[in-house]
Amino acid sequence: MAIESNNETKREAPIRLGMVGGGSGAFIGAVHRMAARLDGEFQLVAGALSSTPEKAKASGLELGLDPARTYSDFKEMAIREARLKDGIEAVAIVTPNHVHYAAAKEFLKRGIHVICDKPLTSTLGDARKFKKLVDESDALFVLTHNYTGYPMVRQARAMVAEGAIGAVRLVQMEYPQDWLTEAVEKTGSKQASWRTDPAQSGAGGSTGDIGTHAYNLGCFVSGLELDELAADLDSFVEGRPLDDNAHVMMRFKEKDGVRAKGMLWCSQVAPGHENGLQVRIYGTKGGLEWTQKDPNYLWYTPFGEPKRLITRAGAGAGPEAARVTRIPGGHPEGYLEGFANIYMEAARAIHARRKGTAPDAEVLYPTIDDGMKGMLFVDACVQSSKRNGAWVKA
Amino acid sequence: MAIESNNETKREAPIRLGMVGGGSGAFIGAVHRMAARLDGEFQLVAGALSSTPEKAKASGLELGLDPARTYSDFKEMAIREARLKDGIEAVAIVTPNHVHYAAAKEFLKRGIHVICDKPLTSTLGDARKFKKLVDESDALFVLTHNYTGYPMVRQARAMVAEGAIGAVRLVQMEYPQDWLTEAVEKTGSKQASWRTDPAQSGAGGSTGDIGTHAYNLGCFVSGLELDELAADLDSFVEGRPLDDNAHVMMRFKEKDGVRAKGMLWCSQVAPGHENGLQVRIYGTKGGLEWTQKDPNYLWYTPFGEPKRLITRAGAGAGPEAARVTRIPGGHPEGYLEGFANIYMEAARAIHARRKGTAPDAEVLYPTIDDGMKGMLFVDACVQSSKRNGAWVKA
Amino acid sequence: MAIESNNETKREAPIRLGMVGGGSGAFIGAVHRMAARLDGEFQLVAGALSSTPEKAKASGLELGLDPARTYSDFKEMAIREARLKDGIEAVAIVTPNHVHYAAAKEFLKRGIHVICDKPLTSTLGDARKFKKLVDESDALFVLTHNYTGYPMVRQARAMVAEGAIGAVRLVQMEYPQDWLTEAVEKTGSKQASWRTDPAQSGAGGSTGDIGTHAYNLGCFVSGLELDELAADLDSFVEGRPLDDNAHVMMRFKEKDGVRAKGMLWCSQVAPGHENGLQVRIYGTKGGLEWTQKDPNYLWYTPFGEPKRLITRAGAGAGPEAARVTRIPGGHPEGYLEGFANIYMEAARAIHARRKGTAPDAEVLYPTIDDGMKGMLFVDACVQSSKRNGAWVKA
Amino acid sequence: MAIESNNETKREAPIRLGMVGGGSGAFIGAVHRMAARLDGEFQLVAGALSSTPEKAKASGLELGLDPARTYSDFKEMAIREARLKDGIEAVAIVTPNHVHYAAAKEFLKRGIHVICDKPLTSTLGDARKFKKLVDESDALFVLTHNYTGYPMVRQARAMVAEGAIGAVRLVQMEYPQDWLTEAVEKTGSKQASWRTDPAQSGAGGSTGDIGTHAYNLGCFVSGLELDELAADLDSFVEGRPLDDNAHVMMRFKEKDGVRAKGMLWCSQVAPGHENGLQVRIYGTKGGLEWTQKDPNYLWYTPFGEPKRLITRAGAGAGPEAARVTRIPGGHPEGYLEGFANIYMEAARAIHARRKGTAPDAEVLYPTIDDGMKGMLFVDACVQSSKRNGAWVKA
Repeated sequence: MAIESNNETKREAPIRLGMVGGGSGAFIGAVHRMAARLDGEFQLVAGALSSTPEKAKASGLELGLDPARTYSDFKEMAIREARLKDGIEAVAIVTPNHVHYAAAKEFLKRGIHVICDKPLTSTLGDARKFKKLVDESDALFVLTHNYTGYPMVRQARAMVAEGAIGAVRLVQMEYPQDWLTEAVEKTGSKQASWRTDPAQSGAGGSTGDIGTHAYNLGCFVSGLELDELAADLDSFVEGRPLDDNAHVMMRFKEKDGVRAKGMLWCSQVAPGHENGLQVRIYGTKGGLEWTQKDPNYLWYTPFGEPKRLITRAGAGAGPEAARVTRIPGGHPEGYLEGFANIYMEAARAIHARRKGTAPDAEVLYPTIDDGMKGMLFVDACVQSSKRNGAWVKA
Repeated sequence: MAIESNNETKREAPIRLGMVGGGSGAFIGAVHRMAARLDGEFQLVAGALSSTPEKAKASGLELGLDPARTYSDFKEMAIREARLKDGIEAVAIVTPNHVHYAAAKEFLKRGIHVICDKPLTSTLGDARKFKKLVDESDALFVLTHNYTGYPMVRQARAMVAEGAIGAVRLVQMEYPQDWLTEAVEKTGSKQASWRTDPAQSGAGGSTGDIGTHAYNLGCFVSGLELDELAADLDSFVEGRPLDDNAHVMMRFKEKDGVRAKGMLWCSQVAPGHENGLQVRIYGTKGGLEWTQKDPNYLWYTPFGEPKRLITRAGAGAGPEAARVTRIPGGHPEGYLEGFANIYMEAARAIHARRKGTAPDAEVLYPTIDDGMKGMLFVDACVQSSKRNGAWVKA
Repeated sequence: MAIESNNETKREAPIRLGMVGGGSGAFIGAVHRMAARLDGEFQLVAGALSSTPEKAKASGLELGLDPARTYSDFKEMAIREARLKDGIEAVAIVTPNHVHYAAAKEFLKRGIHVICDKPLTSTLGDARKFKKLVDESDALFVLTHNYTGYPMVRQARAMVAEGAIGAVRLVQMEYPQDWLTEAVEKTGSKQASWRTDPAQSGAGGSTGDIGTHAYNLGCFVSGLELDELAADLDSFVEGRPLDDNAHVMMRFKEKDGVRAKGMLWCSQVAPGHENGLQVRIYGTKGGLEWTQKDPNYLWYTPFGEPKRLITRAGAGAGPEAARVTRIPGGHPEGYLEGFANIYMEAARAIHARRKGTAPDAEVLYPTIDDGMKGMLFVDACVQSSKRNGAWVKA
Repeated sequence: MAIESNNETKREAPIRLGMVGGGSGAFIGAVHRMAARLDGEFQLVAGALSSTPEKAKASGLELGLDPARTYSDFKEMAIREARLKDGIEAVAIVTPNHVHYAAAKEFLKRGIHVICDKPLTSTLGDARKFKKLVDESDALFVLTHNYTGYPMVRQARAMVAEGAIGAVRLVQMEYPQDWLTEAVEKTGSKQASWRTDPAQSGAGGSTGDIGTHAYNLGCFVSGLELDELAADLDSFVEGRPLDDNAHVMMRFKEKDGVRAKGMLWCSQVAPGHENGLQVRIYGTKGGLEWTQKDPNYLWYTPFGEPKRLITRAGAGAGPEAARVTRIPGGHPEGYLEGFANIYMEAARAIHARRKGTAPDAEVLYPTIDDGMKGMLFVDACVQSSKRNGAWVKA
């Protein structure tokens, strides 16, 4: 219940938001819009929702945008909005991966904050330029590795940092799905089509789309940095150019005197799994387990004691969970609330920027560096697999 | 993913919404606001957020309301907003129960639609007047029995209606909580204080606060009507004037040749339960089980076959679930999304009203009649318990 | 791992066991035999496995019994075995309910210990005579309310007794099944046939067969005694003379200053439930929950702290669980092991009797008094239901 | 309920059984004895329970063995029992791994059937000699990879064989434990001591003790054969000479046109896991998931349909499960019942051997070849890990 009650003084005017991509039929664009709306901190006022003018226009109408601020070209949108007195302050980029960098560049260089979907780009080259661009920009850059917005993921991270499980030895990550079990990319699914196309997605299939999420989550919670990995990638469906399953072994850099190990499994061909994201972390003094299927719960075992079920907003949940929770315990929060927490953190940072101050120390969102790590992870997976599972530095 | 994609033509202008109650520190007011915001169909533009002027003003500021439209008296708000050209079209009433009727009256009689929290009122007398008022009003009345907004609850209702479990024999409902295990109403909790005060809550404690939800859900899913009940109510915490636990046996009216039976347990003194709402329904051909803890799942057993796990937006979920779901299966939706579905249905009905048409046949929300049933349920529970558990007609 | 390691000195010779009932095709007879064999404390040496001579003979052969000790008349068996130098020391009675008393009488009066299935008898009259008989006999009487043999049920009982949940307020019991959803008693099922026949089962259907188990378990764990109950019994399947569903409200006798309440639901017509036995107990300081589906786990919530999962032989399990557990934690034990624990306790008592000593204080098994309570429970349910759910003293 | 009802004619005389190892305080010896007793098919009549004469004698007394048949030397036991007219027909070998081969040799060469714990031996050299010995012996050899005795594991295997999930693509195995999280081998635990000692256990720690189980189960259910693996082994606890955690990637031999992949994780340092054995198999048409924590359940997802929960002895379970189940659905069976199923299968084979016939085609138990595969798996893991995770042929 912390989110509204933090606003004890006059509410800031909503942040004027634009969107690139996310026209009719897109999945993630609608998610970003709901996440932006939930807490009332953003107002969508402009969009380049599609590069097809007709579709851009229709999508703008559907969303109630002013036709004058409905664009089919993101560059035009950046230029014109930058000139408006009440032009957009931030933009959400929700296109396929290969457009992220080019779009972000136009906004960042005009001082418009960018909230960008992951993975960062479709090529490592673009990613490196992207990193440079963001580092040199005054505008903010937020990457929506949204799972880090779940309250119990924050709780887990805080517990590891506080030593609740001792020195970390093991990080077991997985993200199985089943929606690409058959060759749906050949039967007209727009989602399946671009996500299995190297030109739009990049070098990674399941690794880029969901493996990066699992990897990001493992690092976020454990506080560890990857040293090297060995991967075995497959495309089980005939004719699919990108991996639809990946098995990865990991070695992390030493921390607290321990060189932790890990495994990551991501798959789009595992029937029975919708979005089975899970992270399990074990240390010298205990273990923590979280799964997206039951996002309001965190299993905690202090070694030698009974397992405990820590619930969002319940006994055992600390301030890190409380500041990103909206409703009392026992009323489940879900994916959209977690996603909205990233937008809420972005809003806090942008509000501070408006005032010329630094955001509160607690404000936490995924950055360009997390994006780079994801790109390097995909690249390492692909390189390792090509070299028959050799260990590759991340 | 049905919600946005239904809007295939120009989006309607958001509905101008006011709020009565819901000032700083309130729980349910914030929930209504998030539910109203999620789909962009409402815009909060006015409020009588507290009857204390200072608090009303501060709360308005926090929410970014125009100070000119921040009131401390709901009657004044009704009068003035009704006169404005762009005054509120609908009002959310989120006060303690004893204020519902008086507040709703002022808006309904001025043609302003009312979205009201449950239970309907604090007295049966008020409830009867309320029913008459609504029946005679041209404005819409929506009661936020929010659990009926969960997609899998809709799915269950549709399956029962289609005969998936045959004729219903048994309806087992429960809603255990633990937050009143000790006398927190004596230690400054505002929530606990009014919810255990007969003057503000009415004759029912746990029965009114949560029993009505479980009862509403049992009827919603089963399609049955209660005939009579026998109840045993307790106030386990010393000095608490209202029930904090209720055991209820039920007999439903005959349907499909069967006179179904049921049990309902609601409790606020059951340690380990946050909001353990659950409904289980068994018929001649199968069973259905749903629990709020895992709201994206519905267990279905066709008699003589293995149990099946139907997931929101997954295989086995039908159009009734799809039209109130926002994101793909496997990404959990929660309490706020379910609550927002009631607001979405209200928006659909209000949009139709704007155009002078009838809403689509699928539009479904709890009505004044559901509110009356809840009041009669509480009254029957209290009467039965006073008469040592005698059967009382509902 | 306590069971074998308790035997630190010379093992006792196995107890010579007979059996009445349990011929080919019976369910519970085979369960008793496996339970008796598991720990090597009993040896089946004689049987009146059926009253049909041919079937008795065949069943004896199947079990490898000496044909000379295979009887078709339990009285003959009692007389002859009592005369043998190495005749049976104990007999297991596993017939339909109406035979229990007559059979037990023949053995008890000859000093042969009796291990008898539940419910005690088919009539309250027989039950009262049975009680008198046992009280006057020197032989031991053990009733196989087997669920009290589960380690985590023992653990729960110990925790309640030690005050882990404070004074008990609520006892919620249920035992739903689905095997009688249709009229299988008319299609040749022997099990269904006698269990729905008043002449063989007694006045209670689901109440006698499974309700007694749930009730026994609720009392065993809570340490409470029932004061009165109100019941609503149904026979949902047309033409079925005994109840196949029961809803019961309960009031317990005051203990620790609290008059606890409870509910019990037993059903044989709830599709999706195989043997859904569950008991949940809530007190002033915490809650405990156990379900047969996951028998190796006990959920414990100290009020205001996270839920804990206590596992059989794991951290948090105490000596009461340890003395009835055989294998390390994480390797599941089940129904047979729990049943065998009752046999193990019986063996301990019989071994002590051999030596003329009292058994250890920890030895715990269901007695004739538990049997009487079960009979009174069924009778009170039937009486209450006939009187339209009036409260009836138990 | 199939087990007793299969014996429709005269029961065979119990098989005379001896035991090597399993003296006081041992874990697995007691498990073997209970498994052997449960169905009454074996009678323990001799033992070399310890190589320490005093302890052997005391252990024999505890178990009620004839002192004349209590040995401290397994060779002496083999020689003397082979000469007795009613000497043992079979022997259970339950010593630490390094003794298995030497002990088995003495019995096999005298025609005494051997039931041996796993892993097969402590060295690959011994394993190869063992294989030769068994192949040349007329006596039977049964390896207690006991998890293959669980009814739902049998069910899963049958479903894969029948094509329920199409061609297998993925086999995900894991077996995490936490009992070696700290250096308990240095604090007097006998179990921990020998299981972390290369001289007694062999080259594998967690890989040998539990990894072999997970691997055996993955192959048993999938019907696949391993081609090669890449492994990363760790000893997280300082000074521990054997692995306590292993991460393994696997490539199976082609079957049904697919070259399946897999992952295996076994760990003894994962706090919160008692015996978390799990196998998940995904194919072109569906998925199957089984975990030892809930052994009576099997999750089955036909691709594109809702998940189904198949229960032991419930709807959806076939003859392969039924023939190794003892009690009705909903009454949980556990580890001992699964273990006893291996003994039951051994008994069926031995009974057939007594008569000079072949056992029924359905009789199924782990063989010397399964033992060899386990040894090769451990060796490949160790070799791969030494070579920095290179792929090693299995």
